[in-house]
Amino acid sequence: MTNIQINGQRLLNNIFDLAQIGATTDGGVTRLAFSDVDIQGRQWYADLVRTSNFDYATDGAANQSAVLRSNHPHTKPRTLIVGSHLDTVFNGGKYDGALGVLAAFEAAQTIQENKIELPFDLEIINFTDEEGSILGEFGSHALTGALTEDQLDNPRGGRDNLVAGMERLGISEATALGARRNPADILGFFELHIEQGMRLKKQQLDVGVVTGIVGIRSEWISFKGKANHAGTTPMGSRQDALCGAAEFMLKARDLVTEKYHPAVLTCTQISSGPAAFNIVPEEARFALEFRHGTEELLNQMAADLRVLGQDIAQKSNLEFEWDDVSDCRAAPAAKEMVEALESAADLLGLSHNRMMSFAGHDTQMMSNFVPSAMFFVPSEDGISHNPKEFTKEQDVINGANVLLHAILALA
Amino acid sequence: MTNIQINGQRLLNNIFDLAQIGATTDGGVTRLAFSDVDIQGRQWYADLVRTSNFDYATDGAANQSAVLRSNHPHTKPRTLIVGSHLDTVFNGGKYDGALGVLAAFEAAQTIQENKIELPFDLEIINFTDEEGSILGEFGSHALTGALTEDQLDNPRGGRDNLVAGMERLGISEATALGARRNPADILGFFELHIEQGMRLKKQQLDVGVVTGIVGIRSEWISFKGKANHAGTTPMGSRQDALCGAAEFMLKARDLVTEKYHPAVLTCTQISSGPAAFNIVPEEARFALEFRHGTEELLNQMAADLRVLGQDIAQKSNLEFEWDDVSDCRAAPAAKEMVEALESAADLLGLSHNRMMSFAGHDTQMMSNFVPSAMFFVPSEDGISHNPKEFTKEQDVINGANVLLHAILALA
Repeated sequence: MTNIQINGQRLLNNIFDLAQIGATTDGGVTRLAFSDVDIQGRQWYADLVRTSNFDYATDGAANQSAVLRSNHPHTKPRTLIVGSHLDTVFNGGKYDGALGVLAAFEAAQTIQENKIELPFDLEIINFTDEEGSILGEFGSHALTGALTEDQLDNPRGGRDNLVAGMERLGISEATALGARRNPADILGFFELHIEQGMRLKKQQLDVGVVTGIVGIRSEWISFKGKANHAGTTPMGSRQDALCGAAEFMLKARDLVTEKYHPAVLTCTQISSGPAAFNIVPEEARFALEFRHGTEELLNQMAADLRVLGQDIAQKSNLEFEWDDVSDCRAAPAAKEMVEALESAADLLGLSHNRMMSFAGHDTQMMSNFVPSAMFFVPSEDGISHNPKEFTKEQDVINGANVLLHAILALA
Repeated sequence: MTNIQINGQRLLNNIFDLAQIGATTDGGVTRLAFSDVDIQGRQWYADLVRTSNFDYATDGAANQSAVLRSNHPHTKPRTLIVGSHLDTVFNGGKYDGALGVLAAFEAAQTIQENKIELPFDLEIINFTDEEGSILGEFGSHALTGALTEDQLDNPRGGRDNLVAGMERLGISEATALGARRNPADILGFFELHIEQGMRLKKQQLDVGVVTGIVGIRSEWISFKGKANHAGTTPMGSRQDALCGAAEFMLKARDLVTEKYHPAVLTCTQISSGPAAFNIVPEEARFALEFRHGTEELLNQMAADLRVLGQDIAQKSNLEFEWDDVSDCRAAPAAKEMVEALESAADLLGLSHNRMMSFAGHDTQMMSNFVPSAMFFVPSEDGISHNPKEFTKEQDVINGANVLLHAILALA
């Protein structure tokens, strides 16, 4: 069936049509989840689904799906879900999310047109609020039953905005909490996404098959010392909290680079007090985030980083505090789903390699729920969340063809 | 004349009497310049001067002086000014400033009682707002003609507070700008102060004779890099402004410690952006302050620090910016005044050593105007600007006796 190919021009037309909704003057797109522009985008997708003769379905989290029903004589067919999200960040690009939904839809259309009978229902999903304008991976949290009342009470975009946004989409807290599906009914999940990095470009590869999405640990770190006169306190007698923080930031960077490659670690949002030129800093506080592929490695990193902070504090006569903010579990991909993607790429003669994803995606939620895998196509210069985000036509088409043949491989 | 000694009990009584004005519940003092409590303290000093049969004088900056006129047959005697300030910081101590005025006044009383004829007028001064509740070294700036309209327009405590405060003290912008004295009329200036550090205690010395007050350079430093995804940007590909800042802060500290001892350098008030856990810092900005004994050394330090910042920026693909905020000139003491203090200490059998002052004082303004010198007596545990500030009775008495005999040495 190698000869079956998706319709590249139709897919590109859909991508550019959708990009008109929320288009910004510099070529980007602003289609923030729950906004009026988001609702326009959703209407566009619903129209596309209906006019293309798919069943249209939506759920209590406002996830939108095109469903191609199986006519195979199973008593009750399971469902293969494929998709991504149609919302964007502020002044983002045309491909992040949209490619994953529209390439999957194109693959489904190709199957429909070729009258290929699948032994499972095929569902092309647009997950609500992946980017986190208000909550983050809202739709995939709800579908997998991971959404909590605490998340709904304290969303990053503000509780009032969430309540108003849900009302605008015709859903509620109760419907979102009730949107969990039964994993036994679901065969698996695929997601195509642009890489948002340079690995494929650097290795001149067509496809990156994701073996897992890194877990993310977020902490607030603080060092406390002693406020003292910046003139009369000799250099050797200081308990300078900011120097402690600086030493931690550099040594943590080196530790992760040398011992945990390819893990990443980032310190941000630093502040120190008191607010004076002439007082040795009493306190320095900053955000720490680190990502790696397994929970075991994340636990090792956390332990090493705590020891590092305690050692610096002890040596410099400071106090060290470590406060957990959030913990997003690492999400390994399912072996059979990875292999289906690889066999599709092989069939198409596309070069590919395995890699981790260092960014969160809806696949992260889905992986801990049903057998899932995702893959990347190259993004030029690794740019994303930016109007300059661009993926070449051939890479767009390759992505949709890999999805098509991975679906067929499971059939 | 070694046998002449000041009256220790009277001096201690005066210090404790004055400390009642603005006393805080934990044993400290809050007598902020220009406040109603400051006005009570000023009234107390004016009453002390008048009831002790000194001439009372004040000027356009509300500096208050007790004057002991010379009867020596000079056509026009010059004036030796001795003193410090009676204002305090918020919840400060009993000795910072008050000791310098009241010990000088005690020395003058001793000279008066012993009917010693001086060949110069002796003026015991209380400088307005040394601590900078509103402007900082306001009185000594005005007396030396260093006060500028820009300082009056932009005082650290706010223009409105300065205008209201001056009105409360019966002065104005015009009178303050006109308060400059003719340096030819002034013989010199002495100031006694508590050390606000641990050097005398550590070396078990009675007196520290100050050879100069350090100059202070203040800068805003910023590093600029590139905001990037904290997950998908590998450690080796980052332009992390905060890592650049951290490296600068640590290397600047080491540079100053190793090459410029006993200079001090302090980084404070850091911030970084954007305000997200998951974006590599694009900018980090912090305040830099460094102090050393001469302008030449300060210039060398500044040059070294700029090169350090530029090297880090180049290596890490960042931009480096250095913005001058203020420049307080180093103020070397006058040799003859230093020697007068040392000969007084020797006469009294007090151990002493030469040292720099790393804190600003009114002597800083006076040094660049007339021959000046100051000296320290120990403060327990180096604590100051704090209710726990304490100087032992014998050290208080020693300080007043050194002032007495230094005045006599000039006579």
